[in-house]
Amino acid sequence: MMVPRSRFGLRDDSTRPVVCVQGLGFVGAAMAAAVAAARDHNGRPCFDVIGVELDTPNGHDRASRVASGRFPFASADPEIGKAVEMAHNAGNLGATTDHAAFGLASIAIVDVHLDVATGDKGEPTALLADFEKAIATLGRELPAGALVIVETTVPPGTCERVVAPVLARELAARGMPADALLLAHSYERVMPGPDYFSSIVNFWRVYAGHTPEAGDACGRFLSGIVNVQRFPLRRLASTTASELAKVMENSYRAINIALVEEWARYAENSGVDLFEIIDAIRDRPTHNNIRQPGFGVGGYCLTKDPLFAEAAVKQFRGADALTFPFCRSAVEINRQMPIANLDRIERLAGSVKGKSILLLGVAYRSEVADTRYSPAEIFFREASRRSARLRCHDPYVREWSELGMTLPEQIPDPLDSDIVVFAVPHRAYRELDVVSWLGGARPLIYDCDNVLKRDMRAALRQAGIRVESTGRGIGL
Amino acid sequence: MMVPRSRFGLRDDSTRPVVCVQGLGFVGAAMAAAVAAARDHNGRPCFDVIGVELDTPNGHDRASRVASGRFPFASADPEIGKAVEMAHNAGNLGATTDHAAFGLASIAIVDVHLDVATGDKGEPTALLADFEKAIATLGRELPAGALVIVETTVPPGTCERVVAPVLARELAARGMPADALLLAHSYERVMPGPDYFSSIVNFWRVYAGHTPEAGDACGRFLSGIVNVQRFPLRRLASTTASELAKVMENSYRAINIALVEEWARYAENSGVDLFEIIDAIRDRPTHNNIRQPGFGVGGYCLTKDPLFAEAAVKQFRGADALTFPFCRSAVEINRQMPIANLDRIERLAGSVKGKSILLLGVAYRSEVADTRYSPAEIFFREASRRSARLRCHDPYVREWSELGMTLPEQIPDPLDSDIVVFAVPHRAYRELDVVSWLGGARPLIYDCDNVLKRDMRAALRQAGIRVESTGRGIGL
Repeated sequence: MMVPRSRFGLRDDSTRPVVCVQGLGFVGAAMAAAVAAARDHNGRPCFDVIGVELDTPNGHDRASRVASGRFPFASADPEIGKAVEMAHNAGNLGATTDHAAFGLASIAIVDVHLDVATGDKGEPTALLADFEKAIATLGRELPAGALVIVETTVPPGTCERVVAPVLARELAARGMPADALLLAHSYERVMPGPDYFSSIVNFWRVYAGHTPEAGDACGRFLSGIVNVQRFPLRRLASTTASELAKVMENSYRAINIALVEEWARYAENSGVDLFEIIDAIRDRPTHNNIRQPGFGVGGYCLTKDPLFAEAAVKQFRGADALTFPFCRSAVEINRQMPIANLDRIERLAGSVKGKSILLLGVAYRSEVADTRYSPAEIFFREASRRSARLRCHDPYVREWSELGMTLPEQIPDPLDSDIVVFAVPHRAYRELDVVSWLGGARPLIYDCDNVLKRDMRAALRQAGIRVESTGRGIGL
Repeated sequence: MMVPRSRFGLRDDSTRPVVCVQGLGFVGAAMAAAVAAARDHNGRPCFDVIGVELDTPNGHDRASRVASGRFPFASADPEIGKAVEMAHNAGNLGATTDHAAFGLASIAIVDVHLDVATGDKGEPTALLADFEKAIATLGRELPAGALVIVETTVPPGTCERVVAPVLARELAARGMPADALLLAHSYERVMPGPDYFSSIVNFWRVYAGHTPEAGDACGRFLSGIVNVQRFPLRRLASTTASELAKVMENSYRAINIALVEEWARYAENSGVDLFEIIDAIRDRPTHNNIRQPGFGVGGYCLTKDPLFAEAAVKQFRGADALTFPFCRSAVEINRQMPIANLDRIERLAGSVKGKSILLLGVAYRSEVADTRYSPAEIFFREASRRSARLRCHDPYVREWSELGMTLPEQIPDPLDSDIVVFAVPHRAYRELDVVSWLGGARPLIYDCDNVLKRDMRAALRQAGIRVESTGRGIGL
C-alpha cells in the first residue's frame, strides 16, 4: 500500500515524480530547495520533493522547519529561503522523519554525513556505519526502478564497494534483483554564502552511473535542475572517477590554502605585505587560484575530504604502498593555522595570560552561519588553555553549539579588551568603522584574514591604535 | 674616454639611450631582442641595445651570434629570430664580451645565472659569488645616473643585502656616492616556446625600486617595452617584495605540479583516468590552475626557485625557525617524478635490465630546446643504472650537452625497441601517426605526459599494441 502524498505535505492529486532528499543539512536542504524550484517549459514544478530526516531531535527540528516553508539555517542568500517558501506555497515540497516517504520516490538523493576519524599517526578511517545504514534504508524502502544519486562526499570506490552491495543485499531480502535500483554518483559544489542557491543551479556539475542506464537517468535528472545551457554537465567513466574528482578537487583547495602558510610567516618576518605580492601573482591566469593567508580552514569539507583517498586505500584495497603526503600535511597545517595566529599575537602582545581577547567571527567562513570544525573553536580552546579571557561575536551565530555559548547580537563594547581579533571577513566587520567603534579603547587590533583594508589600517594608526595582520610585516 | 658605439655593432651617430643586457641566456637574449624591438610613436627604435656576455667560449659564441643578427637558441617562435634580425639590420642591437660596453649604458639589465646548492639534509644555499662578480662589474663600469634592473631570480632580499652594498662598494672605490646608480628589481615571466617573444612584451610585469626614484625610472623604462595598455605594470613596495613575488610564483607552480603526483599513483592503482577527472575539476574557475600528471619538472626555474626563500632565511637573516616544507617537498617530488615513471614501466614490463628503450623527448618541456635539469636526464641516468639500453630523440635537440650525446634528426626506427617512452608532448610526437611509424614493431608504448590522445591509444590497441600512461589505470 502506497502512503498518500498528503502525509508529507504534498498534494494527493499530484502525479509529479517524487524526489526524496535524504538528509537536510547544509547541502541536502539547499538541494531540496533547488529540486523543488525546477520548472518545466510551462512554468510548472517538475518534481514533488520530500526532505527525509532522521528520527532525532535535530532531525525533527530541521524537517519541521522545511515542512512549514522555512529554510532550516540562517543564510546570507535570500534566494534560498524564497525558494523554500515558494515551493511550500506551491505544495511541492514537504519534509518528514518517516522513512515511508521513500516508498513514493522515483529518485533518492543521498546527502547524509560521512565523517573521518584519525588514528595516533594521523591515519584516517572513514566512519561508514551511519552512511551504510542510510543506504540500507533506501534499499528497503525504494520502489523498483528508482534512481539513487549519492551526493555525499565519500572515499573513492564507495559506490562500487559499499553502496551497490548494500543495496543488493537489501533488495535480495525483498526478493528483488540487484538491478531493481539504479545507482549514480554526482557531487555537489554548494557554496553557502550569498550565492548559496545559485551555486546549485548555476554551476558545472559532474556525474557518473554505476551502470550506463543509471548514468543516463542521472544526466536526465540533473539537466532539469542545473542550467546546463551555460554549465554543461560532465559525465565521467565510473562512479569511482566522480567520487575521486570531488575528493581531489577539495584536496587541491586545501593544499593551496596550506601552501601559503610558510609564505605568511616569511612575509611577517621579512617586513613585506604578502597580500600585495599575491595580487601581483594573481595577474597570471595560470596562477589566479593562489590563495591568501588567513585565520584557518574549517567547515565540513576541506577539513576531512583530503583524507578520503588514503582512507579508501586502507579500507577498500588492503595494505598498499600509496601515501598522500600533500593531503596529510595540508589538513594538519590548516588545522594549526589558528594556533599560528595566536602565536603571532603572543609575539606581538606578549603572553595572552590574563588578557581579554575579543574574537570577531566564529563561523568557518565569511557570510555563513556554519560553525562546524571552525578555526575559531581551535583558537578559542587554545587561547583559553593559555589563560586568556575570551568574548566572541559573529553576525550569523547566536548559539555557538560546539562551545555551548550564546553570543551577543551586537558587536560587544571593546572598552575592556586588550586584544581585538578580526578572524572572519564578514561584511559586518569589513564595513565597520573601527575607529568610531573603539571610542577611547586602545587594544591591539590583530587582523587574521585581511578584514581591514589599507585605509582603515591607516586611520587606526593615525588614531594611535596598533594594528597588525597575518601575512604582513610589523606596521604594514 | 667613452668608447665609440660602433665597437659594439651600433651606429656612432646614434643618440638613443643605450641598454646593456648582462647575460645572453634564454632570458637575456630574449630581453635584448624585446628591448631592441621597442619603437617610439614615430616607429623609430627607442634604444640601442648591447648584449654583454662573459669572456668564455660559450659567452663568445652567444655574443657573436647575436652580433651577426641571429638568436642564439633554437626556438619554436619565429618572432624572436625576426626581432633580432630586424634590430641587427636597423643597427640598434649589438653584442660583445667587452665590459667597456657598460660605460655607454643608461640602463643595465642583469640576466646572469644564480644557482642553488643543496646540502646533505637538502638545505639550500644560493651560490652568490658569480652573481656578485657580475654586479661588481656594473658598479665599476656604469656611468653615474644609470639604472640597474635586476631581472635574475634571486633569494628575496638580495637587492637590499647584496646588490646595493656591492654597488656602493664599487662606487666608493671610484670616489662616487652610493646613490650614483639607481637600483630596481623587475622579474621576467619569459616562456620559451611558441610565444617566446610575446611572453615579454604582452604580459603582466612586476617591479619595485630600491629608492622611489629608481622605481619611477624602472616603471618608465618598462612602459616602453611592455604593452602596458593591455598588461598594466604592478609596482610593489620594495625590491624584496618583487623578489619574493617571483620566488613565490614559481613555488606555487612547482607545488601544484607536485601535488598531482600522489593522485597519479592513486588513479593508476584504482583503474581510473586522472585526465578526465582533472578536466572536470578545471571547469571551476577557482580550480582551473590544477596541473596534470607528467614526466617530471625541469628547466632552470622550477627546479631551484622554491628553495630561494629558505636560502634567504639562512644566508641573510641568520638562524631562524622558518621552514618551507611544501617548497622542499615539491622540489624533491618533482625531481623523483621521472623515476616514478620508470618504476611504473618496470611494473608493467618487468625489469628494464637489458631492454632497449627509445626515449622520445629530452628537452625540459614541449617546444623548447632547453635541456637544463631535464627530467629526461634523470630518467636516462637511472634507466642506464638499471642496465637498460637507451636511444633518444628530440625534435629541438641535436647536441644533448648534459649527456654529451648527439641525437638523430629523425625519429629513430622503433623496430628493435622493447619500450617506447613518450616523455615530452612536442607537437612532432602529438601529431605522429604512431601506428604507421611502428610498422611491424610491437614495443610497449608508455606515455608519460598525455602525449597520445584517446583516438591514437585506441588505434594502437586495435593494432595489438600495448599502450599505458602515467595517471591512467591499466588499459585506459
